[in-house]
Formats: sequence, structure tokens, C-alpha cells
Amino acid sequence: MLEIEVKSPCADLRAVENILMEMGAKLDGRRRQIDIYLSHPLREFACTDEALRVRKETEAASLTYKGPKIDEDTKSREELKVRVSDADALMAIFDRLGFKESGRVEKSRTICSVSGISVCLDSVSGLGDFVELEFEGGDLDAGKKAMLSMMQELGLKENERRSYLELLLDRKK
Amino acid sequence: MLEIEVKSPCADLRAVENILMEMGAKLDGRRRQIDIYLSHPLREFACTDEALRVRKETEAASLTYKGPKIDEDTKSREELKVRVSDADALMAIFDRLGFKESGRVEKSRTICSVSGISVCLDSVSGLGDFVELEFEGGDLDAGKKAMLSMMQELGLKENERRSYLELLLDRKK
Repeated sequence: MLEIEVKSPCADLRAVENILMEMGAKLDGRRRQIDIYLSHPLREFACTDEALRVRKETEAASLTYKGPKIDEDTKSREELKVRVSDADALMAIFDRLGFKESGRVEKSRTICSVSGISVCLDSVSGLGDFVELEFEGGDLDAGKKAMLSMMQELGLKENERRSYLELLLDRKK
Repeated sequence: MLEIEVKSPCADLRAVENILMEMGAKLDGRRRQIDIYLSHPLREFACTDEALRVRKETEAASLTYKGPKIDEDTKSREELKVRVSDADALMAIFDRLGFKESGRVEKSRTICSVSGISVCLDSVSGLGDFVELEFEGGDLDAGKKAMLSMMQELGLKENERRSYLELLLDRKK
């Protein structure tokens, strides 16, 4: 299973949400997410293009590993995810294993889905607003095509390949 | 929160279970557990006296970190545990992070509790039968006293400090 992701800065999230609703999108929820990125004791994830993330939400927590990107246009990469019962206990375990917090992204996220594509409307603390499109499936070409067409319909132009974490770190430089 | 654990080989699990029931123990369940131990990419858990374990049960999975033992008589150590939604996905994540399977313990476990002590009656594949007593709390001395008294009542004498994994590895030598 591959994940294709495209992310674009957005001047008016409300307008995009309205277009999505007109397209018949299903609203899957609104939530506050705190993403804590961890560093590996042995290798530099920034160099290997990997990421390990603990996500804390109001009533949920998860652990996600993202492998190196395998496509230039989109942000396709292996993604492995498990739900966990306790984000703080999980971070304590990783602390004992030598993994330390390397960055933190906080955002309000509205999630909807339409035509097999998951759309996230994100307000990221310290960064601004973005729309993230995500396609999951086995057919890379079909996914890319559907994503590019959806971007046009939503009036999104830029394809920001950097993660929120990278954007925040770049801003600090 | 500290965990004190004592483990003892047992010739007759059924007899111990009967004594426990007579003492008014509460039966918390019987289950099949597969414990997969992982090695750290950077340090030897066998030397640092730590353990990282993914546990697969019929309808549950968990991740546990155990720190070095801090008491000679019992097996007191820091223990951090989270429930996870998918043991196989979690193992794939650890694989990508450089952690490999170092050993596997399969057992049938009957769990009961009495007088604040959790008792596990274990039939371990390739090893035989054991009774494990566990006390969780802040008072180390009170816990040790309660555990030693419980061992006497159940007719258990030996205190096996080695883990099932260590016992299996020793048997292979």
C-alpha cells in the first residue's frame, strides 16, 4: 500500500471547504493534533529522509514511521502506523531507547474525503494554513492523476514538498 | 510506580490454582501469548539488562520496555507499557528503525489476583510450568513482604531471576 500526498499553502481554507462540500465531500472530523517528532540514536532522519512521529489527539494517540520519499512530484513513501493507548508512555519508552524529541508541530485539522481522496484543511501554529491531499492505494499513476485534477478544482497551485516540521525549522533559520 | 516480580518453577499448576481459588482469588482470564523480544541497533540489551517486547495475544497487542533490575531479591525494575492496535505493523516500524527479533516466548497464561498481588500460572512452550507473582505499588518493602508470604502459602520455593527468554537461551547452549 502506497501513500501519495500533495500539500499546498492556502489563503482561504473556508473557501476550499465550501468547494469540497459542493463536490459532496464527507466531513470526517475536526481535531487538534500535536505531533512530536523523534530523533534516532544512530542515524540522522533529516539525511535518510525518514520520520518517526508520536501524534497526540484529544482522545487518541498513534505512532507513525515514514520511509524515504520515492517519487519527485508527490511525496510518496512507505507509511506504517499503529494506534497506541498512551502517547506519554510511548514517548517515555522511546526516551529509554535513546530517541529524543527533535521537533513539534501543533495544528487544527479538518478532515474530509471525496472521490477516494482524503483532504486535510490544516491551520498550523506558527506556519499558516495548508490543504493536504492524500491518496492511498496500489496504483501510483491513477492516484497522481486524481490528485492533480483535485488540486485544480480546489484552486491549489503550489506543491510544497517540505513537511510542516521542515517548514518550521526553515523558518527558524 | 514500581513492579516487583517473583517467578518460581511449579510441578503442579492445577494444585496452585486450587489453593488460589480457596484463598478467594479472582480469575482474570486465560490466554495464549506470543512475546517477541527485540534487539537494539546500538546496545546489547543482554548487557544493559533491559528488554523491549512486543506481545501478541488473540485480541490484543502491546509494547513493553523493561529497565535494568534494581533489586537483587526480586526482579524490581521500571516497566513502561502501551497497548497497540497492530503488533505486526509495530514490528515493521521497529524493523525500519534497526530493531530485530532476538527471541520469542510462547505460553498459555492463566491470570488471577488476590490480596493486591497478580498471579500468573504459565505453561511455557519448551520450558515447562511456572508461577509468577507480581506486585505493583510505591512501597517496595511492603510489596516484598506480601510476595514472600504468598510464595509460602502456594508452596513455592525457588526464586528464578532469569526471564523465560534467558531460560530458553540457556537451554539452547
